[in-house]
Amino acid sequence: MLEKIASSADLKGLGADQLKDLCAEIRRELIRTVSANGGHLASNLGIVELTVALHRVYNTPEDKIIFDVGHQSYVHKLITGRYNQFSTLREYGGISGFPKRSESEYDCYETGHASTAISAALGMARARDYRGEKHQVIAVVGDGALTGGMCYEALNDAGNSHTQITVILNDNEMSIAPNVGALSSYLTNLRISAGWQSAKKKVRHLSQIPMIGKPLYGIIHKIKKFMKYVLVRDKDLGFFEALGFQYFGPIDGHDVGSLEKTFRQAQLYNVPCVIHVLTRKGYGYEQAEKRPEAFHGTPPFYVENGNRMEEPNCPSSGHRMADTLSKMAETDHRIVAITAAMPLGTGLDHFAEKHPDRMIDVGIAEEHAASLAAGLAVGGMRPYFAVYASFFQRCYDQMIHDICMQKLPVVFLLDRSGIGGEDGQTHHGVFDFAETLPVPGMTVLAPCDADELCEMIEWTAKQDGPVTIRYAKNGSRLKGSFRNGVRFTPGQWPRILDGEDAVLLATGSMVRIAASVHEMLQEEDIHVCVYNCSTVKPLDGDVLCREMGKRPVFTLEEHMMTGGFGEYVTEWCRKTGITAPTACIGIGDIFLQHGSHDLLMKDAGLDADQIAERIRNIIRRTVD
Amino acid sequence: MLEKIASSADLKGLGADQLKDLCAEIRRELIRTVSANGGHLASNLGIVELTVALHRVYNTPEDKIIFDVGHQSYVHKLITGRYNQFSTLREYGGISGFPKRSESEYDCYETGHASTAISAALGMARARDYRGEKHQVIAVVGDGALTGGMCYEALNDAGNSHTQITVILNDNEMSIAPNVGALSSYLTNLRISAGWQSAKKKVRHLSQIPMIGKPLYGIIHKIKKFMKYVLVRDKDLGFFEALGFQYFGPIDGHDVGSLEKTFRQAQLYNVPCVIHVLTRKGYGYEQAEKRPEAFHGTPPFYVENGNRMEEPNCPSSGHRMADTLSKMAETDHRIVAITAAMPLGTGLDHFAEKHPDRMIDVGIAEEHAASLAAGLAVGGMRPYFAVYASFFQRCYDQMIHDICMQKLPVVFLLDRSGIGGEDGQTHHGVFDFAETLPVPGMTVLAPCDADELCEMIEWTAKQDGPVTIRYAKNGSRLKGSFRNGVRFTPGQWPRILDGEDAVLLATGSMVRIAASVHEMLQEEDIHVCVYNCSTVKPLDGDVLCREMGKRPVFTLEEHMMTGGFGEYVTEWCRKTGITAPTACIGIGDIFLQHGSHDLLMKDAGLDADQIAERIRNIIRRTVD
Repeated sequence: MLEKIASSADLKGLGADQLKDLCAEIRRELIRTVSANGGHLASNLGIVELTVALHRVYNTPEDKIIFDVGHQSYVHKLITGRYNQFSTLREYGGISGFPKRSESEYDCYETGHASTAISAALGMARARDYRGEKHQVIAVVGDGALTGGMCYEALNDAGNSHTQITVILNDNEMSIAPNVGALSSYLTNLRISAGWQSAKKKVRHLSQIPMIGKPLYGIIHKIKKFMKYVLVRDKDLGFFEALGFQYFGPIDGHDVGSLEKTFRQAQLYNVPCVIHVLTRKGYGYEQAEKRPEAFHGTPPFYVENGNRMEEPNCPSSGHRMADTLSKMAETDHRIVAITAAMPLGTGLDHFAEKHPDRMIDVGIAEEHAASLAAGLAVGGMRPYFAVYASFFQRCYDQMIHDICMQKLPVVFLLDRSGIGGEDGQTHHGVFDFAETLPVPGMTVLAPCDADELCEMIEWTAKQDGPVTIRYAKNGSRLKGSFRNGVRFTPGQWPRILDGEDAVLLATGSMVRIAASVHEMLQEEDIHVCVYNCSTVKPLDGDVLCREMGKRPVFTLEEHMMTGGFGEYVTEWCRKTGITAPTACIGIGDIFLQHGSHDLLMKDAGLDADQIAERIRNIIRRTVD
Repeated sequence: MLEKIASSADLKGLGADQLKDLCAEIRRELIRTVSANGGHLASNLGIVELTVALHRVYNTPEDKIIFDVGHQSYVHKLITGRYNQFSTLREYGGISGFPKRSESEYDCYETGHASTAISAALGMARARDYRGEKHQVIAVVGDGALTGGMCYEALNDAGNSHTQITVILNDNEMSIAPNVGALSSYLTNLRISAGWQSAKKKVRHLSQIPMIGKPLYGIIHKIKKFMKYVLVRDKDLGFFEALGFQYFGPIDGHDVGSLEKTFRQAQLYNVPCVIHVLTRKGYGYEQAEKRPEAFHGTPPFYVENGNRMEEPNCPSSGHRMADTLSKMAETDHRIVAITAAMPLGTGLDHFAEKHPDRMIDVGIAEEHAASLAAGLAVGGMRPYFAVYASFFQRCYDQMIHDICMQKLPVVFLLDRSGIGGEDGQTHHGVFDFAETLPVPGMTVLAPCDADELCEMIEWTAKQDGPVTIRYAKNGSRLKGSFRNGVRFTPGQWPRILDGEDAVLLATGSMVRIAASVHEMLQEEDIHVCVYNCSTVKPLDGDVLCREMGKRPVFTLEEHMMTGGFGEYVTEWCRKTGITAPTACIGIGDIFLQHGSHDLLMKDAGLDADQIAERIRNIIRRTVD
């Protein structure tokens, strides 16, 4: 059936049975493709009926649907003309795992980070009103994303503006991990009331029993009214109604009929609406229903048992980090770990196992996480906030204003730094040097491997100001011999490979690449020496004074060139009055798209081949 | 009396009359000092009784009070041992207009930007619990700051954590401008219920009338109960209770007795509490009560009539910007202006007068403002978001993720860029180049004066991607002859002064300083040429190729050196294979404190004298 659905119009004629078949087919397709390519599975399985119902009731693409976070847009892609390309999902050059305006007119707004959709929807709705257009604007937001403060800012603005927008609250009781926060408990109350609604329906049938039906119904109706008052009343509509929204729900999110009915009902209102839909993450695939977190974002797996096709050959950087922190926390009672809804992704689940009381999950709320960390530090604790580098962008101001200005010992652990791979442009962590290097008092570190990461974390216990450590997901060890047992010392760049023809100042993940370059060029009798520049701020002035100006020097970083390590080295050299690096190698002025990490590194010119070529050319030029 | 109050302990023994006198004396001192030094007046006048009551009930400094935004901490400073230094308020080397940990142990947490206090308080409260301490933690938050999403993130986390914190909601129905948003209407409902509470008290007196009193009271009591149900019930406790807080209030914020009673009552609860306090901005000084916005932050003024001592001799940059935008909006119906609670500060009040429908005030909510702008742009509008440069830090991720990745025509108008003056470190706008230059697709502009700013704004109507324009508050015109009638052309750096000994590449506010340097050095027969580098990204490659390497070249910027204009020029030169600038002049690796703009420029080495000296030295060295 999917093959015949080229646009949302094709959905409208289907009957109930056909819809059921279609949903089943969509689920099969999701499982087939994600099991092969990897991707976001559980959230997409949970949103099949909801997406179908949306496209049946609303007149897309004229009506605009914005998917918050965007990783749950696979179903939407399948039924808006991208079925035939679906097997290229998340592959280099293939279709993206997130909404892309360049892919389809059905993708009206691009997302990737959480909690932006209501703001965007309100903007689009206001634009519609300014232009005298008539279409609907719908934001589909998970209950997890609703912990993000932006959602509240947008609800507050929308509720007051009388602009008609519809917010679909896709409530699966989870963000990525099980949800936290008071609002989550509040939603649970609304869910309890759902049980009540269905009881109410059953009671109504009573009235059809002859003779005793009506009086009995009357009595039960009164009891019911009281029960509803007690159960639901006070907690009921308060939150969304206080914010000026008309609330509908909760609705069974796997019942296309109920969904459609409610969407039609909401369209009659000319005020901002929230439609509260209950769905199950992973619905329809047992493995994913059982372990929704594992199937949130998953590598390729075997459909029959859900097992991953390739188990990683070493623990992730995040787990190495968390294990180190756990051990330190046994004796250092000041240590506390913070995550913004990513205990698994950041590896902090290992910390939580050992120190459940000292692990704080704030939900998707990076701004709050950073200022909370500042408060903890003022109160005498040692907070470690583990966060993906691209989400760290969310607490930029708090990092400066709350933490660095007060010189507080907060450690930012930036996982997934560098090029992110299949998730694409919104998930690359390539701005963090530009964020942290200009900020007074911040120490900026980038380990070459997970061993060094652990040594850095141990060192942070002894220092007294803010520290940022950026690292890649991959926790594998740099060839042992390179590090020669030299432990991390802040501000010192160990020389890990010798060579007299050129100098590579490599930071973080690029040390490994630099080592490959060293090997490649050695075969051509070009000998490059490699430094592990694991402290980016403050720089190792001794190495720079010793090395600069004698032979070609290259800086290497998996980060934007602008605002990065290379520029920072250059400015230091100028201030000190020594020769600057010959070339800075990093990412140029483009947003990299999605695909395997290796292919994207090639795109950015950061693979060993291209770097070797650049060095070769410059050395030849120097010799000539 | 103030002289005798060296610590909060001295407050505790005072009787009701003495308190009244004290509050009057505090008001006189506030008016006296702020009328002389300038500063935040209305908010401090509004919080006199509240601050006194807090210090009387709570055991400060063991108990911790965090003032959100911090500009309302003057009263707190006056009664915690800083009365004698109070006349140095906001002066260079004097006491700060914001909480400063280095000033006093009573200042437990530093603030400046809005909406951080609840997060910080929760962090400090959790630290207290981890360490087995017993003190109270209190966050004082204005209703304006409550529109900031971070507050909600923190309430959501706190309400779920069972950590005891107290949030004082200082509700004056204003942020800086009158409040917006649905929550504001919601609070109005709670305020209506306050009127009800006082009516209730009056009714109670009825029961004391002999004979008819009791039955009448009974009837009225029933009516009252119904009225309360109708008036208050549904809207009542929903919002804060949904978030897990115990709600108290609303309380008259100018009645020390009621405040103290409520604080004591709240201390008995072992759950997170919100105490809703009603205050009046400007209370006790007629001029400020009448025009609270004008007396939010004020320059020196005459106490008798509230008139400013010195009227600015030209319209601000913001007003010039808004007038230009207004004029364009007459014919370009796509133009819409956005502010985050700063219509006056940004000058957009001028736009609102002409185009009230196309002016959106989102409240203190920069994250939302940016994504809203993105939504408007997707919908076909041309949004201009005017925001202070330091608050722009709040929407760093949205700028990258929503606007630049989608290449949307959103214009960021960064007012108060550069060194901010008396407000101090939290208000300097010195990171914005570092924020914007690394982001693909962003055009970055910095006009040398308000005329050029207007020309830039006119140009933005014709372009199709994101643009950032940073400018200083001061709208005065660069000497006319310098610009020679050359209008702004994107990507071109006009040479405004000639000279053969050195080249100054000056951007934004530094063009004026460069012109002074030119004049100073001319007297010594040193001739420096000055370029107005008003487009920072993309650079003017022609000028660079023509000028670099022939004579000393200096870049000048009122921005951090790291991540700034100079580094950007340098990297471009290296990539292009031409000589880099001789020196980059900007702010070093420190947070500048507070004081007059001139003194802070000296501190940063950015005054004409010091720059001339550097150039002189280098030219001499070159000649030698």
